[in-house]
Amino acid sequence: MPKITVAELIAALGGDLLGAPDPVIERIGPLDGADATTIAFLANPRYQQQLAGSAAGCVILAPALRELAEARGGSYILTPDPYLYFARLTQWWAAQVRPLGAPRVHPSAVIDPTAELGLDVDVGPQAVIEAGARIGAGARIGAHCVIGERAVVGEGSRLAPRVTLGFDCRIGARCLLHSGVVIGADGFGFAPTAGRWEKIEQLGAVRIGDDVEIGANSCIDRGALDDTVLEDGVKLDNLVQIGHNVKVGAHTAMAGCAGVAGSAVIGRGCTIGGGAIVLGHLSLADGVHVSAATVVTRSIAKPGQYSGVFPFDENASWEKNAATLRQLHALRERLRALEKKA
Amino acid sequence: MPKITVAELIAALGGDLLGAPDPVIERIGPLDGADATTIAFLANPRYQQQLAGSAAGCVILAPALRELAEARGGSYILTPDPYLYFARLTQWWAAQVRPLGAPRVHPSAVIDPTAELGLDVDVGPQAVIEAGARIGAGARIGAHCVIGERAVVGEGSRLAPRVTLGFDCRIGARCLLHSGVVIGADGFGFAPTAGRWEKIEQLGAVRIGDDVEIGANSCIDRGALDDTVLEDGVKLDNLVQIGHNVKVGAHTAMAGCAGVAGSAVIGRGCTIGGGAIVLGHLSLADGVHVSAATVVTRSIAKPGQYSGVFPFDENASWEKNAATLRQLHALRERLRALEKKA
Amino acid sequence: MPKITVAELIAALGGDLLGAPDPVIERIGPLDGADATTIAFLANPRYQQQLAGSAAGCVILAPALRELAEARGGSYILTPDPYLYFARLTQWWAAQVRPLGAPRVHPSAVIDPTAELGLDVDVGPQAVIEAGARIGAGARIGAHCVIGERAVVGEGSRLAPRVTLGFDCRIGARCLLHSGVVIGADGFGFAPTAGRWEKIEQLGAVRIGDDVEIGANSCIDRGALDDTVLEDGVKLDNLVQIGHNVKVGAHTAMAGCAGVAGSAVIGRGCTIGGGAIVLGHLSLADGVHVSAATVVTRSIAKPGQYSGVFPFDENASWEKNAATLRQLHALRERLRALEKKA
Repeated sequence: MPKITVAELIAALGGDLLGAPDPVIERIGPLDGADATTIAFLANPRYQQQLAGSAAGCVILAPALRELAEARGGSYILTPDPYLYFARLTQWWAAQVRPLGAPRVHPSAVIDPTAELGLDVDVGPQAVIEAGARIGAGARIGAHCVIGERAVVGEGSRLAPRVTLGFDCRIGARCLLHSGVVIGADGFGFAPTAGRWEKIEQLGAVRIGDDVEIGANSCIDRGALDDTVLEDGVKLDNLVQIGHNVKVGAHTAMAGCAGVAGSAVIGRGCTIGGGAIVLGHLSLADGVHVSAATVVTRSIAKPGQYSGVFPFDENASWEKNAATLRQLHALRERLRALEKKA
Repeated sequence: MPKITVAELIAALGGDLLGAPDPVIERIGPLDGADATTIAFLANPRYQQQLAGSAAGCVILAPALRELAEARGGSYILTPDPYLYFARLTQWWAAQVRPLGAPRVHPSAVIDPTAELGLDVDVGPQAVIEAGARIGAGARIGAHCVIGERAVVGEGSRLAPRVTLGFDCRIGARCLLHSGVVIGADGFGFAPTAGRWEKIEQLGAVRIGDDVEIGANSCIDRGALDDTVLEDGVKLDNLVQIGHNVKVGAHTAMAGCAGVAGSAVIGRGCTIGGGAIVLGHLSLADGVHVSAATVVTRSIAKPGQYSGVFPFDENASWEKNAATLRQLHALRERLRALEKKA
Repeated sequence: MPKITVAELIAALGGDLLGAPDPVIERIGPLDGADATTIAFLANPRYQQQLAGSAAGCVILAPALRELAEARGGSYILTPDPYLYFARLTQWWAAQVRPLGAPRVHPSAVIDPTAELGLDVDVGPQAVIEAGARIGAGARIGAHCVIGERAVVGEGSRLAPRVTLGFDCRIGARCLLHSGVVIGADGFGFAPTAGRWEKIEQLGAVRIGDDVEIGANSCIDRGALDDTVLEDGVKLDNLVQIGHNVKVGAHTAMAGCAGVAGSAVIGRGCTIGGGAIVLGHLSLADGVHVSAATVVTRSIAKPGQYSGVFPFDENASWEKNAATLRQLHALRERLRALEKKA
C-alpha cells in the first residue's frame, strides 16, 4: 500500500490544499468508517453531515464547502469536482499498487508470422494471434485471448485473459476488454423457409472506437452486411448483448445484462439501465436515459428518462393486481359506461 | 471482394433473369444507398417504393413485382422468395471472401490418444480434446476449445474459439457454436436441508441435433437424470440460458438473453423473443411465439403470439401509472361498488 | 453404470429398509417411467398416487407413507427427507460413474515459480497460474483456467475449464466454478465529466466463502474500494451478474440470468428467481424470496415472497391492457370523480 502525504498527493494530482499538508494517507475509503490514514471525498452536498462525524485524515471537497471544512478542521483538497478527483486518485493509486509489468511476448503464445506487433506489445501465455492481425504499440493481449485474422487492436488497448476478437474486427486505442468478451460472433440472421431457418452469413465486422470499455462476458455481434459500431468512449458493463448492425453513440453507457437487438441506433451520451432491452431497428436520440429493466419497444426522439417496470410487491398483493391487470381494458369500458350514465 | 456478373450469379444460385445480364456486382447491400455495383433484394412489397429510387445494379425480386421492375428498367433476379435467395447469396459470398483453410491439427493442441478424429478434422491452437471424444469428419474445433471425455461432435460441425463441450455431451452434424458457449455445465439442482443446500449431482448430459446454431456465451446445462435436448435446426442467439432437462423442439429460435428454466418443454417451430423467460416445468405447444422480454409463467397449449411487457413511458408518467397499479385490485372493487349503486 | 442391491445402497447411504433387500438397482429415475432396476423417490405426498402405478424396483420414501408402501409391496428405503437422500444418492452415483482421475499437473500448464500448489492439486492442460497464487490441497484447476496474481483457491475446490479468477481474489474450500465464470473483472465505475466518463479504478477484490457454486458464464466483479463478498454456501446459476461491492449472505441462491447491481446487500437464506434484478445500494433482509423476473427497486426489510411481473397474455389482449395501463392514473382520477358524484 502507498504511504503518501496530502502535500505529495496534491503535487501529483493537483487541487488546492486547505489545512494541514502533512497527514500520511494509506488508503482511500468512504467518509463513514474512515480513520486518520484515510482519504475520502464528499461530492454530494446532501451528505455533508457525514463530514463532521468522519475521522478521515483528508477529504476531497468542493470549494463551496470550505466553511464547513474550516469549522471541522483537519486536512482537505479543494477541487471543483471531487468525484472526478477521486476517480483520478484511484487511477494514480492503481498505478502504485499494481504497476504493469514490463511487456513481454510469452513463449507459449501462438502468433502467426504475418501478424504485426507494435512496439512494447505484451502477449500473455497461450494467446493466439492469427494471420494479418495488427496489434498497436503498447497494447496488452491477455492469456488465452484469440485475435482473429486481420483484426486490429489500437495502441495501448488492454485485453484481459480470454477475450475473443473475431476476424476483421477492429478496436481503437486505450480500450479495455474484460474476460470472456466476444467481439464478432455472427449476428442472429436467418431466413425462414419451409419450417426451418436458412442462415444469412454475416458479412460485416465490428468497429469499436477509442477509450471503450466492455465488461466480462459481453458480446458484440458482427454486422450482416455493414459493420456493428461502438463509437468512442462507450462503456458497457458485464453480460451485455449488442446485436448485429447496432450503432452505439459516443460516451453512451450500458449497465449489466442490457441487450440491444439488431440494427438499433442508440444516440450519444445515453445511459441504458441494467437488464433493459432495446428492440431492433429503433432509434434513440442523444441523451436518452433508459431505466433498469425497461423494455424499449419504439423509437425515442426526445432526450429524457424513460421507464417501464412492473412495481414489485408482496406476492399476494402482486397476484391480485396482476390478475386485475388482465381485465384492465374491460374495466376502462365499465368505467366509461358508468360515466355515461352519471 | 468478388466481382461477378448477374448472369454468373444466376448460373451459381438459380433464379430467372429479367433485364440486363451483364452488370458487375461487387457488394450486397440494402436498396437504400445502393450503387450500380450493388445487388439488393426486395422481399416485402410494402417497401416497393424504395425500388424506384434505388440505384442498385441488380435487385432480387418476386415475380409478382415484375411490372414494377419493367417500369424502372435495369437488372433483376426473379425468385419466389427473395429473402431466401438473399440468404443463399450471403452463403455463396462468404465462401468467396472467407474460404476455410485446409484442415490441420495445430501442434499445440492437446489431444488424448484415445480421442477419435474423423477425416479432414481441423483443430485450432491449444484446443483440448479429452479421452474417448469423437470428432466427425470435416468438423472444425476452434482455438482453446475444450472437448470433454466421451463427447461427440458430428460431421461438419464448427466450434468457434473458446467453446466448452462437456463430457458425454453430443452435438449433431453441421452445427455452429460461437465463442464462449458452454455445453454441459451442471444444472442448478440442490436439496434444501437445515438452512443450506445439498448438491444434486447432474447425471444426465446434453444432446443436440443437426444444424443447430448457438450464439456466443450461451449455456446449455446437462440434465439431472436424463438429458437436456435441443432438436434439429434449433437456433439460439447470444447469452441464452437453457436449464437442465429442457427440451427444445426442432427449428425453434430464441433471441439474445432469453432464458428457459429447468424441465420446460418448448415445441417445434416456436420463437422466443430477446430477454424472454420461460419458467420451469412448463410446456409450450408447437408454433408458440413469445414476444421479447415476456415472462411465461404457465403452459401454453395453443399456437399464437403471447406478450407481457410493461409499456415504457416518460419516467414521470410511468411513476404515476406504476403507483396506481399497486392499487389496481382495490380500484376494481371501488368500480364494482359504484356499479352496484348505479 | 453401477449395479447395486438396495441393501448395499443402505449400507453406503443409510436409511431403513422396508421390504425386499435384494432388488438390483442400475439407474436413478422418476417414479413415472421407472422399471424394476430403477430407484425413484417420493418427496411430495401430493404425488403419492404415482407410487401405486410405478414399476420402480425401489422407492425412497418418508416413514409417514409406510402404509401406502406396504399396500403396494416391493422394496423401500425409509428416510425422513427423501429429497435429501436422493441428493446424496446422486453424489454417490456420480462418484461411481465419474471417478476423478489421479491428480496431475499437465505439462502444458504455465505455472509461475512463485505460485504455491498444495498437496494433490490437479492442473489441467494449458491452465495459467500467475505469480504468488496459492492453490489449496486437493483443488482441481481445469484446462484453460487463468488464476491471477496472488489469487487464492481453497482446499478441494474445483474450477471447470475456462474459469478466470482475477488477481487478489479468493475462493474458499469445496467451491465449484463452472466454465466461463469470471471472478474479479472491474466493477462498473466511472465519474461523468464534460460529456465523457473517467474511469474509477477498482481497487478491491472478490472474497468467496466455502461451499459456493457458481454457474457457467456468471460474473462477480471486484469491489471499488472494499471487496465484493459471497458468503459460505451461496449458489449461483448460469449467466448471473454480481456488481461491485455486493454482499450476498450465506446460503442464498440465485437462478439463471439474475443480476445484482453494485453495493446491494442480500441477506442470508434468500432466493432470487431467474432473470430478477436487484438495483444498487439496496438491502434485502434474510429470508427474502424474489420471484423470477421481478425488479427490486427498493430495500426489503421483511422476509417473504416478493413479485412484480407483467402477466403475459395473448398478444391482442396484452396490447389492449398495456395501452390502457398507460392511462391508469387518469382512470383512477375519473373513478374518483364518479365516486364524488355518487
